[in-house]
Amino acid sequence: MEKSLPVPVFTQAFRYQLRELFLWRRDVRHFQSSPIAPDVLTHLLELTHLAPSVGLSQPWRFVLVDDPQRRAAIVENFEVCNAQALRSEPTERAPAYAKLKLAGLQEAPVHLAVFADDSTPQGHGLGRRTMPETMRYSTVMAIHTLWLAARAEGIGVGWVSILDPAAVATTLDVPSHWAFIGYLCLGYPAHADDTPELERQGWQARTPLQILRR
Amino acid sequence: MEKSLPVPVFTQAFRYQLRELFLWRRDVRHFQSSPIAPDVLTHLLELTHLAPSVGLSQPWRFVLVDDPQRRAAIVENFEVCNAQALRSEPTERAPAYAKLKLAGLQEAPVHLAVFADDSTPQGHGLGRRTMPETMRYSTVMAIHTLWLAARAEGIGVGWVSILDPAAVATTLDVPSHWAFIGYLCLGYPAHADDTPELERQGWQARTPLQILRR
Repeated sequence: MEKSLPVPVFTQAFRYQLRELFLWRRDVRHFQSSPIAPDVLTHLLELTHLAPSVGLSQPWRFVLVDDPQRRAAIVENFEVCNAQALRSEPTERAPAYAKLKLAGLQEAPVHLAVFADDSTPQGHGLGRRTMPETMRYSTVMAIHTLWLAARAEGIGVGWVSILDPAAVATTLDVPSHWAFIGYLCLGYPAHADDTPELERQGWQARTPLQILRR
Repeated sequence: MEKSLPVPVFTQAFRYQLRELFLWRRDVRHFQSSPIAPDVLTHLLELTHLAPSVGLSQPWRFVLVDDPQRRAAIVENFEVCNAQALRSEPTERAPAYAKLKLAGLQEAPVHLAVFADDSTPQGHGLGRRTMPETMRYSTVMAIHTLWLAARAEGIGVGWVSILDPAAVATTLDVPSHWAFIGYLCLGYPAHADDTPELERQGWQARTPLQILRR
């Protein structure tokens, strides 16, 4: 098939920078208060829409959360779940857990909730018959696309998973057939780092890659 | 914290190329027969290990499948599932489904199965109490990291989801607590394109991004 656009050639220099992007992407919980320009946010979401999806179903659904009451409800949801998590920690780890900052919900200028529409007819069901979870996996790849594109703009993303998913859906009043995938905080990070915050705080070190051969 | 490495600055030129990478990544089902050099494959898997993971759990587990009998069993698994999918298509779509090439398992020089170890103690359970599915979501982000890094090397990835997951785990004889996430074909693609094959074949067009505001 004849193409109007030239096929891009990715150079060694690009690959070096792509590796830097992977190395310096972080799960950010410390944000500056400066806002993200609306056109930058729109551009990031449009890039996100280029993510892979099973059967070209594009099942990701984004919810920008600006309403102060809804944001407050999400913060409370997080605080309740985080307190429960702290209580379930073994005694020896609880002090370390209590010291961790696990979300930047209060400071982040942008709150973005991400859902998957498992029942979308788009894609005509292709590729999801034996593995319907691939709809949610596609949505996760959209989140990861956003994460990388944002970091390349100097914008940090933090994924908050310490939430009651059903309560998030209620708070945001989304269609009942949408599945909650993740709640993202976006903003300019307080600092850059090539080491995960959980590793810097001594919670968990990175371990070697595991590859089996069969 | 003082860092030994300089913080990278991502330029407009890099962001342009990153967008090209998103635009020209494809789910590849047509491969050349040329092999992937082992050091290139190792490099790609090491980059993949930089993906985000809940609680820094790094739950992804990779299985390189070289054994001809195991590969043949995977091909048979795909063919059975794909035939079932064809039979379940509505009459008016069945001819279009039958024409699609949905996997490059026969030609791809590298077969990579990806699993998630949901029960890994790494990360000490952080972030996965209310959403244990984030272990699998982390693994999906590792797959997406691999997909992008591979494309930047000119290598195509195809994600095969038309498989019986339990049979894949049996064929590959992996630990019983690993969850099957995806089966990837890797190789040099027969051609490059900025349009998904399912769109070119008329199966499904891309649709506009959906954003709600709350």
